[in-house]
Amino acid sequence: MVAYTPGEQPQGGGWVKLNTNENPYPPSPRALEAMRAALADEGALLRLYPSPDAAPLRQAAARLHGFDERHIVAGDGPDDPLNLLIRAYAGPGRSVGMLMPSYSLYPVLAAAQGAEVIRVPLMPDYSFEIETVARCGAAVFFLTNPNAPLGVAFKPEKVRALAESFPGLLVIDEAYAAFAETDCVELAKALPNVVVTRTLSKGHALAGLRAGYALCPPEVAEVLHRVRDSYNLDRLAQVAAAAALEDREWLAVTVSKICASRTMLSEELVRLGWKVNPSATNFLLATPVSAQCPASAATAAHAFDFLRQRKILVRLFPHHPLTANALRISIGTEVEMAQFVAAAKAWTKG
Amino acid sequence: MVAYTPGEQPQGGGWVKLNTNENPYPPSPRALEAMRAALADEGALLRLYPSPDAAPLRQAAARLHGFDERHIVAGDGPDDPLNLLIRAYAGPGRSVGMLMPSYSLYPVLAAAQGAEVIRVPLMPDYSFEIETVARCGAAVFFLTNPNAPLGVAFKPEKVRALAESFPGLLVIDEAYAAFAETDCVELAKALPNVVVTRTLSKGHALAGLRAGYALCPPEVAEVLHRVRDSYNLDRLAQVAAAAALEDREWLAVTVSKICASRTMLSEELVRLGWKVNPSATNFLLATPVSAQCPASAATAAHAFDFLRQRKILVRLFPHHPLTANALRISIGTEVEMAQFVAAAKAWTKG
Repeated sequence: MVAYTPGEQPQGGGWVKLNTNENPYPPSPRALEAMRAALADEGALLRLYPSPDAAPLRQAAARLHGFDERHIVAGDGPDDPLNLLIRAYAGPGRSVGMLMPSYSLYPVLAAAQGAEVIRVPLMPDYSFEIETVARCGAAVFFLTNPNAPLGVAFKPEKVRALAESFPGLLVIDEAYAAFAETDCVELAKALPNVVVTRTLSKGHALAGLRAGYALCPPEVAEVLHRVRDSYNLDRLAQVAAAAALEDREWLAVTVSKICASRTMLSEELVRLGWKVNPSATNFLLATPVSAQCPASAATAAHAFDFLRQRKILVRLFPHHPLTANALRISIGTEVEMAQFVAAAKAWTKG
Repeated sequence: MVAYTPGEQPQGGGWVKLNTNENPYPPSPRALEAMRAALADEGALLRLYPSPDAAPLRQAAARLHGFDERHIVAGDGPDDPLNLLIRAYAGPGRSVGMLMPSYSLYPVLAAAQGAEVIRVPLMPDYSFEIETVARCGAAVFFLTNPNAPLGVAFKPEKVRALAESFPGLLVIDEAYAAFAETDCVELAKALPNVVVTRTLSKGHALAGLRAGYALCPPEVAEVLHRVRDSYNLDRLAQVAAAAALEDREWLAVTVSKICASRTMLSEELVRLGWKVNPSATNFLLATPVSAQCPASAATAAHAFDFLRQRKILVRLFPHHPLTANALRISIGTEVEMAQFVAAAKAWTKG
């Protein structure tokens, strides 16, 4: 069994931290107010168990998505819905499918459940054939959409066509949906084999709180509610997540700032001659090149080290041909982006 | 698969809530300070991932128990260490053992992993034979010590003798250890097959925060660190739990108040003619009797209903002969105990 390798979390200050796709802005003030209220009266509420099924979070998610609250399952953490789905639907003889590359946690969770992993490679243009996925034989298939680490999004019509021909459970991991133009929530409402998972870590700037949920067809919700731990989300995370989901204005403003920075960064890097993926997320996958260094894994590692010496952290994904030559750069504040661009220029010009 | 049934959590006010063994006092002020500090600066810290392995909590637990920090594994919630242990050590062909009665969550977690459950009945004097447990055939045995719902504690010498003759992994679930005179932490330091699990929910009055940890032999820690989710405990829970563990004075004062109330309540109920178990926990298991009603499940249900009509909530455990005639009464504040005693007197005198 292999553990998941999270991105580096430097403990000292002074880093421009663009390596784990955290939101560069503080969370909704309403989330803070909700937590401060929950700490009032000497913290008397903390001695009591929270809602066993995270009712505040589920109610807010139900209002946001127009989804039946009973069919929303909250997790212990943003990855917990993925974990619950694998525990309930995978195991020996019931394999887990995924695109390559996508989120490297799926194989870790599958291994913990004794499930084999079926890896369907993405094509060089980042697309997949519906028939290949539909016939891959997985009991549950995880479609990271938008894809990480590539950044690209698959269209809802294509995902719908896949769901309709795939005989197993299709889980659409929408961790980055806040930054995309479309999502697949309607598919989870309409089709009996589609689950959509969400996290508050990225769009809502609450990575520190570990909250996520799954939008499920009725039968799947019923199964997950039985598998999940009781009281699986703490009181502060419940109220903060609910308040954050309610604050749609904060989300719209924050996402539009991040998307504007993403466009600006992409244009700057293209101007330097780097190859930049289209992105429907809060990061860019970009391939550094310079007059001396053609695109290669060694070039990417060289640029990574150059940036790291300047206390700018990004991330390498050396284990897949579609990502090996690239850097994954989280979108930071405008100041951080300016620092990154200056360093990228310095590296490119040698 | 059957879901765990948590105790009732009434949403309206006005209840004397003595049914889920919550601490009646607010948590350590140091835990509150730590959380308020983590919310400072517009909550800017919340946008960042927390320590992936809950380092602040594990360091505080290491200092408290004189235990190697590397061999402490934090959970998503107080029950998560139990869950991790079952995921790593149980499954088809590797069964889970437990005393009956004890914590009804173990069979739920075992079922989720496809593991059979071996139930060893406690004797009418609440003891068990070491040989019977040692030869039960379980791969992992959960010893709730002090026992819930009985309230009694097994002596460390007896637990050590069991660990030395049991060929599997012995997990000592010390959820209630703060209220007992002894614990088995030394066994987890000394023996390769003993794990001790702790929660902050009871003694530390942080049921709302969902924090727990396991003290493990080195090899077990290594396995659990691989099975657990990354970042599995949120930022606020990490710092609050650490601060709570550091505040030994708060714990000593709070536990001594609760134990004094426990003694008072026990004496009052014995005076009424009720049978009361000795308790090393923050609850009493007490069998109501009156001139009209001999000890029976029907009598317990009658007393339960009588109390409930007066907005006093306790808990029934009707499914086991050692608990069917009894009420489990969490120790509340002095005011709540006086309310309970008044109601118990009214019921007893008809």
